[in-house]
Amino acid sequence: MTVKLVVLYTPPSDPDAFEKHYREVHAPLATAVPGLQDFAAGRFAAALDGGELSYYRYAELSFADQAALEAGLGSEQGQKTAGDYQQIAPPGSRMFVVAVD
Amino acid sequence: MTVKLVVLYTPPSDPDAFEKHYREVHAPLATAVPGLQDFAAGRFAAALDGGELSYYRYAELSFADQAALEAGLGSEQGQKTAGDYQQIAPPGSRMFVVAVD
Repeated sequence: MTVKLVVLYTPPSDPDAFEKHYREVHAPLATAVPGLQDFAAGRFAAALDGGELSYYRYAELSFADQAALEAGLGSEQGQKTAGDYQQIAPPGSRMFVVAVD
Repeated sequence: MTVKLVVLYTPPSDPDAFEKHYREVHAPLATAVPGLQDFAAGRFAAALDGGELSYYRYAELSFADQAALEAGLGSEQGQKTAGDYQQIAPPGSRMFVVAVD
């Protein structure tokens, strides 16, 4: 069963600096995590429910199963990516594992 | 540019009833919205950041562009789906438009 690591970034105080760091450093780290099957990302454009636009960006990293995800995160590349996430993610950003239907 | 409607469901008070409604009524409505190019869904399994598991389920409906998304939501099928969303979505659930990178 495919599992995904889903990251929801809250709005950064300096979007240009965030985008530069994200594009030049963070995305290249994340997409090199071993076992990664698919990477998808994008920007939140609107809230359709009248609520706050709580998030700014998302990323989804797909793995074959929970074991592959854990191996990827536990690898040297995964740890580097996690360390850089601590640098780039604005406060309140979230990171989840989801089980794809 | 692909756009997605992203739905984040908060935990339902009765997960079995939610799953039955979701599987038998809501997902069939959503997947019949005109212009839909791809449908992906799954369940939140864990929070990797030590925070609360704020969401229970997600769904992503992909459209070719913003105009296709608006046409799909504005269609009779889209309105039926939106009406059923009001029935099924637990309080605090969110609905966003995202622009895929």
